[in-house]
Amino acid sequence: MFKKHSSPVNSPGISLSGQTGKFMPAAETSRQNQNRNFGSKNNLRIIPLGGLEEVGRNMTIFEYGQDIVIVDMGLQFPDEDMPGIDYLIPDITYLKGKERNIRGVIITHGHYDHIGAIPHLMEGLGNPPIYMTELTRGIVVKRQDDYKDKKSLNIHTVKKIDRIRLGAFSIEFFHVNHTIPDAVGLSISTPVGTIIHTGDFKFDHSPISDAPADIAKIARLGSENILALMSDSTDSRTPGYSLSESKIAKTLDEIFERTQGRLIIATFSALISRLQSIITAAEKHGRKVAVDGYSMKTNVEIARTLGYIQARKGTIIPINKVNEYPDGKVVIMCTGAQGESNAVLMRIVNGEHRFVKVHKDDTFVLSSSVIPGNERTVQSIMDTIYRKDAKVINYKMMDVHAGGHARQEDLKMMINLVRPKFLIPIHGNYFMLKLHGELGVSVGMDPKNILIGENGKVIEFDYRGNGKVTNEKVPLNNVMVDGLGVGDIGEIVLRDRQVLAKDGMFVIIVIVDAKTKKIIGKPQVTSRGFIFVKENFDLVNATKKKVEEVIAAKTTPNEPANWDYVRNNIREVVGQFLYTKTQRRPMVLPVVIEV
Amino acid sequence: MFKKHSSPVNSPGISLSGQTGKFMPAAETSRQNQNRNFGSKNNLRIIPLGGLEEVGRNMTIFEYGQDIVIVDMGLQFPDEDMPGIDYLIPDITYLKGKERNIRGVIITHGHYDHIGAIPHLMEGLGNPPIYMTELTRGIVVKRQDDYKDKKSLNIHTVKKIDRIRLGAFSIEFFHVNHTIPDAVGLSISTPVGTIIHTGDFKFDHSPISDAPADIAKIARLGSENILALMSDSTDSRTPGYSLSESKIAKTLDEIFERTQGRLIIATFSALISRLQSIITAAEKHGRKVAVDGYSMKTNVEIARTLGYIQARKGTIIPINKVNEYPDGKVVIMCTGAQGESNAVLMRIVNGEHRFVKVHKDDTFVLSSSVIPGNERTVQSIMDTIYRKDAKVINYKMMDVHAGGHARQEDLKMMINLVRPKFLIPIHGNYFMLKLHGELGVSVGMDPKNILIGENGKVIEFDYRGNGKVTNEKVPLNNVMVDGLGVGDIGEIVLRDRQVLAKDGMFVIIVIVDAKTKKIIGKPQVTSRGFIFVKENFDLVNATKKKVEEVIAAKTTPNEPANWDYVRNNIREVVGQFLYTKTQRRPMVLPVVIEV
Repeated sequence: MFKKHSSPVNSPGISLSGQTGKFMPAAETSRQNQNRNFGSKNNLRIIPLGGLEEVGRNMTIFEYGQDIVIVDMGLQFPDEDMPGIDYLIPDITYLKGKERNIRGVIITHGHYDHIGAIPHLMEGLGNPPIYMTELTRGIVVKRQDDYKDKKSLNIHTVKKIDRIRLGAFSIEFFHVNHTIPDAVGLSISTPVGTIIHTGDFKFDHSPISDAPADIAKIARLGSENILALMSDSTDSRTPGYSLSESKIAKTLDEIFERTQGRLIIATFSALISRLQSIITAAEKHGRKVAVDGYSMKTNVEIARTLGYIQARKGTIIPINKVNEYPDGKVVIMCTGAQGESNAVLMRIVNGEHRFVKVHKDDTFVLSSSVIPGNERTVQSIMDTIYRKDAKVINYKMMDVHAGGHARQEDLKMMINLVRPKFLIPIHGNYFMLKLHGELGVSVGMDPKNILIGENGKVIEFDYRGNGKVTNEKVPLNNVMVDGLGVGDIGEIVLRDRQVLAKDGMFVIIVIVDAKTKKIIGKPQVTSRGFIFVKENFDLVNATKKKVEEVIAAKTTPNEPANWDYVRNNIREVVGQFLYTKTQRRPMVLPVVIEV
Repeated sequence: MFKKHSSPVNSPGISLSGQTGKFMPAAETSRQNQNRNFGSKNNLRIIPLGGLEEVGRNMTIFEYGQDIVIVDMGLQFPDEDMPGIDYLIPDITYLKGKERNIRGVIITHGHYDHIGAIPHLMEGLGNPPIYMTELTRGIVVKRQDDYKDKKSLNIHTVKKIDRIRLGAFSIEFFHVNHTIPDAVGLSISTPVGTIIHTGDFKFDHSPISDAPADIAKIARLGSENILALMSDSTDSRTPGYSLSESKIAKTLDEIFERTQGRLIIATFSALISRLQSIITAAEKHGRKVAVDGYSMKTNVEIARTLGYIQARKGTIIPINKVNEYPDGKVVIMCTGAQGESNAVLMRIVNGEHRFVKVHKDDTFVLSSSVIPGNERTVQSIMDTIYRKDAKVINYKMMDVHAGGHARQEDLKMMINLVRPKFLIPIHGNYFMLKLHGELGVSVGMDPKNILIGENGKVIEFDYRGNGKVTNEKVPLNNVMVDGLGVGDIGEIVLRDRQVLAKDGMFVIIVIVDAKTKKIIGKPQVTSRGFIFVKENFDLVNATKKKVEEVIAAKTTPNEPANWDYVRNNIREVVGQFLYTKTQRRPMVLPVVIEV
């Protein structure tokens, strides 16, 4: 292990004793004594490209001299003000020209907010080696199948006892609990000290198809003078301890116990542990399990193959056989608990599923929390189910969902185990990071050593154990994925979509005689999303008249016209006119064509 | 009082003894013995035009013979899939031609989901008399000011001890608790029995600036053989009792106690009781109160004038004086707790407020729950506040908000007090109504007597005390208010907005020589919200080429062309081409002009 912040080395640039000393690059000492050495090439630079100030899009760069290690490469689902966007991925502009320095990419677990950008980014980074545990690998490889045009990944499977060397960095893994098995936290040893990165985590002393988090190993790592703890802030605003997955298993078991009719359980396909609990309960209560939904079928298959889901032979049946069993003898496990429009639950509820129609007395279990923005949709699904005389159990009624993230007491425990000099809250909105920081202070940390970062802002540590969030900000833009396009939707297109959504658009086409500047025929209007034109002739005709007036006023026969100027005038006059008449502001698009 | 369901009258159509017998119209007996008399003119018809299957847009018709009474006239805020829509109001098509039968409109309390449609609908109904309590009147009259072109309302102020006669109906009021004072429930006596309508309610034994719900009166009314209870289902899925407003007052007091810096408290302007609690706490702790936000200033003014808010002279200061006091001596009470983009909180947080900038160590209290759909916005406001080194307290952290609706135990208590023959759950999504119905069964009601209604579906009661939800459905469409337009936005316009929002639009304009069918110049493309055209010349040029091909293939020189057919062809070919290239589906609008 390295010496730490608490025992500064004799002189900068001099190789330390111990296994990693040889990675220390030649010293560049000129700026070293300025500003506590910040900016020195001997400093560790930590650059979060995503996952701070938001939940999702996790990706962090660790850079020391010529060596770069990347942790996670996730996607983020868009805000409501980004209509039509599939998802966002981190902006890797900073890494352009540094591809050769990337020693490796480490993935902490198999959820999309940690793996989702892999197919889009790895090629551009020169396909560096990528490290992950077995189950994570299964999921990453499967997803890569959807991107056949991409080069195959250079994946190395790691075990939790491994220690890997990537340039100046030496990395150990420790087991943590989450809603998916095989999740790891990282201990990243660097020439200036060791960083603990928790990934997404919670402590679960009785997890399902998983072992409890390796507290002993975290404690051992913590005994070695940790420079900084980067820890998951997603649930930092919730007091107490996180719920154990086995509590959920118990609730599910109770539901199976008292339910006579058919059970339809919708959840996230990524909650592998939950899927196991459902299968276990089904086996105990003599039900078959029909799995439906592409991602869920895929995940069950991967997890079964790798042994992370156990099911007896014959428990799992194809969805098209579901009607061969009495209602009391089957459970349907499917996607769509968020009300996603294309998922299985929605199709069942709307009567569009090929094999599953809602039966009277079906019990639907929505075994997930509802992500902000989806509440109304989920409520309307519940309405439809109740209308069909079936019923719903959700997380507001029973403990049918446990989150995957540490709550306040868990976070304090992690800080106490690791006893870091610095705390860098990661994963979460800015206020979640701040609240996490306050927890650090509450267990005795120095408020000056709570480093609240921002996406793109460089955090630096020098060899003396000083650390800070610098003012250096790497280029960072929203990179949006929409259909086949990656990054081609900019702010302008997005703003246009917002305007179009609100009040629609109003296209006016005028053909003008090049010589006389007289309008040929009448102006034509095409409008969508504004008013129903066929029922508003008067308004449309009055608008056409306005256009004719502008053209007459702003052009002169036999002289060249400034059509940009005329168009702007039309836009202004028509926009104002329509607003006065309707108090709506459609996007006005004048097209003037000279013939 | 009328005889009730338990004591059928001797023969239909015969006037009963007692004060209301004279309202019984001449009997039309032909269909009376069919189907338990349903469909008879001697039946009471209850027709919910809104407020069932949804939260909001409350309006219910009570119809007996030639007499109609309407309870409430509210608006509903739109779903996310209704971009640009301000709100929805009930469809009153059923009442067309029946205006002369409307004996009166009764408003239960002054919230927008109960009063918001008044300016839009009253004129169309012939301005019938409208009854409400004093505070409700204050709010309704103030809102009417925004609609100066409308006839003034014919308002009658009622006291809770009043009994009013409206045609065949006799109405008594009883005091209930809600988040606004002066809320009432109704006892509606009809020739076939008495209906209790709770309005929005909760039981609060220690409310703020209000008396506890009049349980004694409800009990007395309940002793008189109630035919049906129509009761508020908004919070029927939450176990236990609702929180008392005085609990919130206590929490607010604690916050004042421990806060040194400035306090900025955002809440709904409609929560009059909350505003009182804030003023009371401010006075106790020696702070001035600056009120900001149009609706909040208005409501404070109305409620103070009428005595529903008490404030000592000098407590309330104008917002432009706020900087004349030290931070520890003021509290700012404002609108915008939901993150509404035009409200005061947003302007303060974004640095756009004229007088209030965020100070370090300000404490923001968001004293409201977050309505589904607004969570992300509120989170981003919290981020901004924390970035400015201020902090936030919300309902997830402390009890700074209490809902206004009865929870499960309260609902059971209401049923037990009223002891109705029938329960008609109102106000809420369908599943909330169903859950409320289950509560009725749990306290011993006959499941057959739980009537789960639907918007527009007629509920009938006959003189024998039989009741049911019939299959008769009155015409009901979404009436959307958008700017000045009421009801002019139909499903087509809305669907267009959704499509435009998702992938934008692509207008292609082609000018064709009428004779030769040759394109004059090049096709022109105007696109918004799809791709950034200036960066995608290749795609645009390829698309123009497709259009030229279609025109060449589908027209013949010197022959008239079927331009509808050509346009459809262009739409199809271009739509498919763009989808192949981008996997996006913009709205394709071909415009072909012959010259």
